Formats: sequence, C-alpha cells, structure tokens
Amino acid sequence: MGMVAQIICVGTELLLGDVVNTNAAEIARTLARLGIGVYHQSVVGDNPERLSQELDDAFSRCDLVLLTGGLGPTYDDLTKQTVARWFGKSLVLDREEERTLRGFFEKLGYKMTENNLQQAMMPEGCTVLKNPYGTAPGCIIEGKGKAAVLMPGPPREMRPMLEGPVCDWLQKRTDSVFLSRTLNFFGIGESTLESRVREEISHMENPTVAPYAKPGEVQLRITARAPDEDACRAMIAPVEAELREKFGKYCYGADYHSLQEAVVDGFRTRGLHLAAAESCTGGLVASRIVEIPGASEMFAYGAVTYSDEAKQRMLGVSAETLRLHTAVSAETAAEMARGVRALAGADVGVATTGYAGPGGEQVGLVYAAAATADETIVRELHLARGRADDRDQIRLLASSWALRLALMAADGDKRLIETKER
Amino acid sequence: MGMVAQIICVGTELLLGDVVNTNAAEIARTLARLGIGVYHQSVVGDNPERLSQELDDAFSRCDLVLLTGGLGPTYDDLTKQTVARWFGKSLVLDREEERTLRGFFEKLGYKMTENNLQQAMMPEGCTVLKNPYGTAPGCIIEGKGKAAVLMPGPPREMRPMLEGPVCDWLQKRTDSVFLSRTLNFFGIGESTLESRVREEISHMENPTVAPYAKPGEVQLRITARAPDEDACRAMIAPVEAELREKFGKYCYGADYHSLQEAVVDGFRTRGLHLAAAESCTGGLVASRIVEIPGASEMFAYGAVTYSDEAKQRMLGVSAETLRLHTAVSAETAAEMARGVRALAGADVGVATTGYAGPGGEQVGLVYAAAATADETIVRELHLARGRADDRDQIRLLASSWALRLALMAADGDKRLIETKER
Repeated sequence: MGMVAQIICVGTELLLGDVVNTNAAEIARTLARLGIGVYHQSVVGDNPERLSQELDDAFSRCDLVLLTGGLGPTYDDLTKQTVARWFGKSLVLDREEERTLRGFFEKLGYKMTENNLQQAMMPEGCTVLKNPYGTAPGCIIEGKGKAAVLMPGPPREMRPMLEGPVCDWLQKRTDSVFLSRTLNFFGIGESTLESRVREEISHMENPTVAPYAKPGEVQLRITARAPDEDACRAMIAPVEAELREKFGKYCYGADYHSLQEAVVDGFRTRGLHLAAAESCTGGLVASRIVEIPGASEMFAYGAVTYSDEAKQRMLGVSAETLRLHTAVSAETAAEMARGVRALAGADVGVATTGYAGPGGEQVGLVYAAAATADETIVRELHLARGRADDRDQIRLLASSWALRLALMAADGDKRLIETKER
Repeated sequence: MGMVAQIICVGTELLLGDVVNTNAAEIARTLARLGIGVYHQSVVGDNPERLSQELDDAFSRCDLVLLTGGLGPTYDDLTKQTVARWFGKSLVLDREEERTLRGFFEKLGYKMTENNLQQAMMPEGCTVLKNPYGTAPGCIIEGKGKAAVLMPGPPREMRPMLEGPVCDWLQKRTDSVFLSRTLNFFGIGESTLESRVREEISHMENPTVAPYAKPGEVQLRITARAPDEDACRAMIAPVEAELREKFGKYCYGADYHSLQEAVVDGFRTRGLHLAAAESCTGGLVASRIVEIPGASEMFAYGAVTYSDEAKQRMLGVSAETLRLHTAVSAETAAEMARGVRALAGADVGVATTGYAGPGGEQVGLVYAAAATADETIVRELHLARGRADDRDQIRLLASSWALRLALMAADGDKRLIETKER
C-alpha cells in the first residue's frame, strides 16, 4: 500500500472540452481497485514545455505517473519524446513494432508514410505495450526511482492496454490481489445509509467499504486485498453478512449494475412474466426493462396511459374510481396494475400514477403498485425535492419504485411496504 | 481577447474515478466559445493543502480560475474556505442565502442541522451565485488582480450556473456581447455534416460555427461577437440561411434542446395528438415525449408490444402480416402505427420494430413508421455499428427516427424519407 500515482492526460481536444476525459476516470478506478492512491489528475495541451513542467511537478509529488494521449504521428509523438527526455533516454527503432506497423498498413492496402515509422521508435530499455486496436504502441519507462506509463488517447485503445499489460505490471508492484463485491440498495437515502455506516467503515482498512450513489440507488462496495482471490472472498463474506443483517430489507441484490438488471434476472430465473402500466413515468419502466438483453423472456406488454380516458380504455380502470379518487390515487394505481396484468396475462403487473410537475400543489405525489394473482401492493410516495429538475427525478424514482415493487412481488417480500422512511 | 483561465475540479469521487469529469469539458467548451483560452485543467481531492498549492500554481499561470466541487456541508465547504483564505477574505453569513436554505428545509419538512448553515457563509465582498438546483450556492471572489469562480460539483447544478450568471459575468470582462443560435439536425451523421462544412467554418472568425454531436443528432452552433445583441443577430442571420439552404432537409429546428422538445412543441402548436407503438424501443419514444413538460396536451396513449401476441392484441396487427413478413418488417411497422393511431384516436401514430441485439444476423435492422389519416410513411433503418454498446444505440436511434417521422408527418414533409444517406 501507500503507493501514490498521478494521472496526466495530454490533448488539446480535452482542453477545449471537445472530448470528455473518460480515460482519467477509468485509470483512477483501476488504480483505486489496486490500492494505489491518486491525489492529482491534470490535463495539458499538445505542448512539450507545459508537459515537461507537469512531469517535474508530478514526479516531485510521487513516483508513478500514468499518461494518456499525445502518441501517434499526428502528435509528433509528443508524449513519448518529452517523457523519454525527462528520463534522459533516447528513442531507438523497435524492430518488432516496425514489423507490426508495416504489416498493418500492408493489410489495409495503404502505403505507409515515413512519419508513421516514428511510432516504432521507443525509449531505450522501456517495456513496450502492444496496441491491438491502433497503430501507436504504449510503453513503460523506468529510471531515477520513478516510472511513467504511456498509453494512447482513444479510450478503445487505452482501455485494453490498461486492463491487460498495465494492470499486470502494477499488480506485480503491489503484490496482492484485490477483489470487490457490490451490494445494491434501494429505498434508503444515500445520506441515511452513509450516516449509519460511516463510523464503522471509516476505520476499516481491509476490507474497505465504500458507498456509491446512483440516482435513487446506493451501492456499498466491499473490497478486500489478500494474497489470492479465495482469501479475498473469505474476508468479504462476514462484512457482507453484517451489512445484509443491518440493511437487508433495502438490499435488492449484489453485483447488479441496476435495478432493472435485477428485475430481468429475477423474473427470468423464476420463469415469471411482468407487465407495466404507466402514467407519470410514461414508458420509463418499460424502457428500463427492455434496456436489458433477454428482457423479451419476461416482458411483452406495456401500456402508457397519460390521460383518464387512456386508463379506462387500455387498462379498464373504472370511471367510478377515477371520479371518486382521481387518477392519482392508490385505487387507480391498483386498478392499473391489475388491468395490465390481466391484459398481458402476466404473473405480475406494475403501475405508476402521480404528479411529476413542474408546479402544482401535489407535485411529487406518486402511487406505485404491483399486482399478483393473490394481492395488490401499493406504495404512496412523496418524491418532490423542490428543485428545478424535479420532473426528471420524480419520474426516475417512480419508475425505480415500480421496479422494486415488481421484484418484491416476485419474491413475496413485503418488508419495504411497511417502512416509512421516504 | 487573449484571456486565459485554468479549471480546477475538486472531489475525491473524481480522483477515485467514480465520476467522469464532465464539468471540466463543459466549462472548457463554454470558455472556448467566449474566446478564453485554457492551457491546464486539474483535479484534486478534498484536501485543503493540496487545493491551496494548486491555487498558487494556477494563479502563477493566469488570472482567472474556475473551480467546481467541494461546496456543501458534507465537504465542510472546503473549496469556499480555501479559496477565500487565498484571497485573504473571511466568510460572513449571507442573510438571503440563509433564508433560502431555511425555506428549502422547511418545505421538505426536515429539521435543518447547523452544519447546513455554513452553506450560507460567503466570502466577504463576493458575488453570490444562486443555485436553484441544490443547497450550496456558488460565488465569484475577486482581489489581487485575480478572480476565482466557484461552482457546485453536481453537473445538473453546475451547468445552469455556468450558462447563466457565470457566462454573463465572463461576457462583461470580454467586453463584447456573444450570441449563439443553434441549428438542430437529425438524419445526417456528424462526420458527414462536419466534413461538408469543415472547410468553410474552419477559417470563420466571427461568427464562428461549431458542430456538437449528441447521440444520433448534430447541432451547429453559430456564435457571433459584437457590441450588442442586434448586431450579433444581423451577423448570424446570413450564416443560418446558408446552412439551412445546404442542409435544410436534415434541420428539424433551431434552439431546441432535443428532438422530443421539437415534437412536443410542434404538435402542441398545431393542436395535434400523437400516439406511439413500440417494439424494439420498448417505451423509449413515449418516455422521451413525456419527459417534456406539457406533453399531456399532445400525448396520451403509448403501447409497448414486445411480442407478436402483444402486437396483435393491443394494436390489431394481423396474424397474416406477422406470418408473411415477420414482426420486423415495413408491413408490421405500418400496421402498428395505424393500430395505435386508431386505438388512441390520435392525429399521428408512430411505431418502431426491429432487432436491437445483442447478436443475431439482422441486428440493427429497424423499421420506423408514422401514420396519418391520409397515409403511412415507413423508413427502413440499418443502425448497427458493430460496437459493444450497439443495443443502447440502436434503441436510441430508432426512437429518434420515430420522433423525426412524427414531426415530418405533422409537417407534411417527406424529404427525409427519400434520402438514402443512412
């Protein structure tokens, strides 16, 4: 542990904001997983002096710098030349990279111009990192007790290099294995969950527990470091058990990317079918489900009913219910869920109806419902936060609640219905 | 001109790579548009000493620094305190911000904890930047011939602050007025459009034309700089006319944020109603429409039919059509569009059906249709790009095409149907 690195991304397109710097985030995430700290990231343009100065600054702070961009012929190999100069190394022709490069152009049927050849000029004594997705190889330069890792700028070239040879090289330096398990939570606010675990997790060193918030969801990532993966798993298990014991009713799964992934997986595994009737979410529930490959095995019918008339005609909601309770009511939500379940011949029907705003006295009031053959569960939600983007947030959270109720209906789990937290 | 700025983003979540730094790109793009150069961006964690050192470095290079993040109570207002200290200013309670804050918590029915109050403590003599999307205000601190602009970290809070008061303040310092007009294009690839305008726009200095790509859409932003807005408008008009002359059939409007905004606006203005039947897009068309406030005036019925049976039962697609042509065919798309139009009693019905993948021989083949009282238009689309995120892209583009066809049906405009570009 205790290793610290800095990330420098080279490229005028980043300085101008034409490209979002996803490389920095990916490298940072990988380093965090390996237990390598990052205190500083920076972006500089295609300018040797400024890059040189940035290298001085970076190596005054730490021993490891990862760079992206500024490789390849259009950049005059700015990064490679500048970093090599910093280490006092000259560039020498790498015969193997030359062959690769010539082969690449031959295969395309293009004549290789000579400026391309400088991509095969590598700092003497460096570790060459092959680039199967582009023409500019990366490299690792070591010396003066420091190391620089140079990777190409295009993310689809950078990523495999980072995840492959760079990770291997870094792991050897950290000489442990890292493994993570993510618990997925819904229905508990990030700040609530965080405040209830903060004290315990803040002094944990191995495994560590880190909270991550997504809109309406929270994840707790447990990461262990050990000599091998089995040892990591053994360290993670008791921490997972404790968190599930404490927050089990909010936990909808583990290692899912999203609530909809859990829903599709849960329904497919059980051989169940789901149908959705949507008013305020307007297709968002269906769309989030269909986003997941394999959704067609468990989902076929969705109804977007954005008026009273549509609710009556498509779902058979009774005029009486609408008159007595209005479209935004537990009764209407329940009839919508039952209606779409019947229409689809599905095992579970879910529904949403509410005021998404903007404006209006009852903005944020939403009813989400799930109907099975045996019963219908409805949850009253108050989702307004008084902010300008409330409409999007209300619709998103309402769709999440419909998905959560669907999972609970499939599970026969009603614990969340009885809670009052939000 | 010749003004130079540096961007500093504060946040451990950025250093860990949990969040991609979209703020830096947005700020950089805005500064570029205002003619302000950026030679350096950096990211530091929630650490006062490192931020302090970064401020020293930044202000040794330039006179203007824009910062995001590190505001709000969970950060102990790190950025505000550290930057104020750099300028030798103390923090004083801003009564107006205190009122706003207390009002916010009252409305939510929560008790405000005292650590929240520090969000209303502002550097003496600063310009307060209101935050209608969150609790932490931003500010501009000036002194020593330098200026620092502090904005919150969450992009949905940062963006409106940047585009509103920060832009206004920056414009005053550049002592011209900038005005932009954005032309919205769909159905022409970014690279095609860009390559066809590049030569002309690359040597334009005032107004400038800059292309911006959104998934499946391209915008050309014309920006003029002049002593006043009328002069800007006069400079923009001929450029707009020329671009419309050249690419008119791909232009669906001006100054819209999205295709769905144009659709809702177009249908509402004409008093028309739209209905949507969706297979491969699975609710995305409806959801994008309902995202726009006021959609209820022009949209009430959506059907998600993700199986043959659902297409027959909800939309009346004939078994014969499904048997002869399959569910993914121009015939089925047309019957779906007509079916949902009839079901809803709407003026226009749109439909999508296709193979979103992943995998399969015909992945990317999609039919989008729009039906009016007089006719049905269908467009065959080939949307696969052979990339790992094809499923999401295919669904998104298919939904965009349905929206585009809806607009064209409302306009009686068929020019795009006849083109073969993509």
